[in-house]
Amino acid sequence: MAAFSFNKLVIFGVGLIGGSLARALRERAGAGATGEVVGVGRSIKSVEHALELGLIDSAVFLDDDRALELALRDADFVLVAAPVAQTEPLLRRIVPFLDARTILTDVGSTKNDVVAAARAALGDRDRVGQFVPGHPITGRESSGPDAAIPDLYIDRNVVLCPLPENPPEVVERVAAMWLATGASMHRMTAEQHDSVLASVSHLPHVLSFALVEMILQAPDAALKFSFAAGGFRDFTRIAASSPEMWRDACIANRAALLTEIDAYINVLARFRQAIETSDGAALEAAFERSRTARTEWQHGGAIKAAAESAQ
Amino acid sequence: MAAFSFNKLVIFGVGLIGGSLARALRERAGAGATGEVVGVGRSIKSVEHALELGLIDSAVFLDDDRALELALRDADFVLVAAPVAQTEPLLRRIVPFLDARTILTDVGSTKNDVVAAARAALGDRDRVGQFVPGHPITGRESSGPDAAIPDLYIDRNVVLCPLPENPPEVVERVAAMWLATGASMHRMTAEQHDSVLASVSHLPHVLSFALVEMILQAPDAALKFSFAAGGFRDFTRIAASSPEMWRDACIANRAALLTEIDAYINVLARFRQAIETSDGAALEAAFERSRTARTEWQHGGAIKAAAESAQ
Repeated sequence: MAAFSFNKLVIFGVGLIGGSLARALRERAGAGATGEVVGVGRSIKSVEHALELGLIDSAVFLDDDRALELALRDADFVLVAAPVAQTEPLLRRIVPFLDARTILTDVGSTKNDVVAAARAALGDRDRVGQFVPGHPITGRESSGPDAAIPDLYIDRNVVLCPLPENPPEVVERVAAMWLATGASMHRMTAEQHDSVLASVSHLPHVLSFALVEMILQAPDAALKFSFAAGGFRDFTRIAASSPEMWRDACIANRAALLTEIDAYINVLARFRQAIETSDGAALEAAFERSRTARTEWQHGGAIKAAAESAQ
Repeated sequence: MAAFSFNKLVIFGVGLIGGSLARALRERAGAGATGEVVGVGRSIKSVEHALELGLIDSAVFLDDDRALELALRDADFVLVAAPVAQTEPLLRRIVPFLDARTILTDVGSTKNDVVAAARAALGDRDRVGQFVPGHPITGRESSGPDAAIPDLYIDRNVVLCPLPENPPEVVERVAAMWLATGASMHRMTAEQHDSVLASVSHLPHVLSFALVEMILQAPDAALKFSFAAGGFRDFTRIAASSPEMWRDACIANRAALLTEIDAYINVLARFRQAIETSDGAALEAAFERSRTARTEWQHGGAIKAAAESAQ
């Protein structure tokens, strides 16, 4: 575990993600290594619940100017763990109270839009340089402070997308914080991040929602659902995900997602052509490539070779 | 359990499906209710292995004219449990030895092509009338005689697609055989069956293979796979399925599958449009419909209401 300590961490949004970070830092870093954790929320009720659960040391209401100012004074870390669409208004709200040395990071599942929000809200070079965009990839299925656990980040991938304005030591401090939770750290550009997540997360969700929507529109939808079995069950598990969250992710990551949807439709059109012309060899070759890659991925093997063969 | 007995059942292809039927009839029907079970295979080795396992009473090599003639003499049932593409040559092979009273059925996962094969091979009305197309939907993940179990069909859906030529009592006998295994019986036309399976089984497999294929073609495929998490895992589990089997299913069910692919691309194009125009309301409404339907399906609830609201 990486050595990491702080004096004051202010978490905006103490749900699963923010609450688990607080728990992880407290329980894994050991006594003396952690300082004060302040939780800030849009509703008194939610932060007070986080306080009752022992996730944070004090609870602050976002609309309370005086409390917010006190919370941010001498804070060494600010974690923005609110929905991505709230990043810009939230940063605008806190910027008047921010200490110039405070380091900020976020947990949003899209990064180009968060970078744009941070530039818009924080303005000049020095302030933006204190903000390090981040994304812990947890595959979370639960939410809220009650779901917060200290082990959430162990062996999970956390991506940082440093800005050109970020001093290296600021990025290192954020990385050290996540390493202290047991996470694996990665760095890439916001563009890379959004393209990767569009491929392996946002697109599969859209495709899964689309299959259920398509069946619902069929005149014999009930009959079709009644014969759906195991393959359908796995394929559509993610179609039971939060409509609000995925609506927001799709729109926040619009540019990258549209690129992926178009690439996908091209592949599907190629498969369609092979089916229409009964080109069994082409279909089998593609299915075989997919099976090999999927099986190697499942076993953590290198899929690089398979990827090269498909180029 | 329905009362069912037979004198001689001849199974072509004693793997998971045929072997489990034999086991189910023997172990569930009780002593005295079952007669002789003959297994016929394209290789001596596979049928002899089924014999060693006790799935069948005698093993016959498909190419052995004399043994095949003896096997089919006085058989009351023939079960074709070979790959769908072999249906027509297999029926042509056995038709010279078939007793006019023998009832035939199959287990293929597509039915229009099996009906065409049966009409081509069996020819006249009376002979075709003895063939009842069927499909036990087992969601099988294993294969071969070693995987055969007596409980495979309990509470599974078995679909029969009776032909206009089938006398009612012939259909009833096939239904009684499956009921004796613990299955739930359904009847529909071959067209309905193929459309339903294209929607809930063949299409999801094609879509899952296509996602992996698309990612493999990306220049940063390895990076993308390395950040794939739980949603990707579930969505692509079926992309690890048998390439040969799904190639055959896609081509055998070509007409229905093309219709489903086109309907799917229409829905995806609509989602794409909503994403491009940031139409969050349209996206959320569609995602919400999908989530509701998927959740109700999971809980076995009636999805009819949701289907009606999407019309």
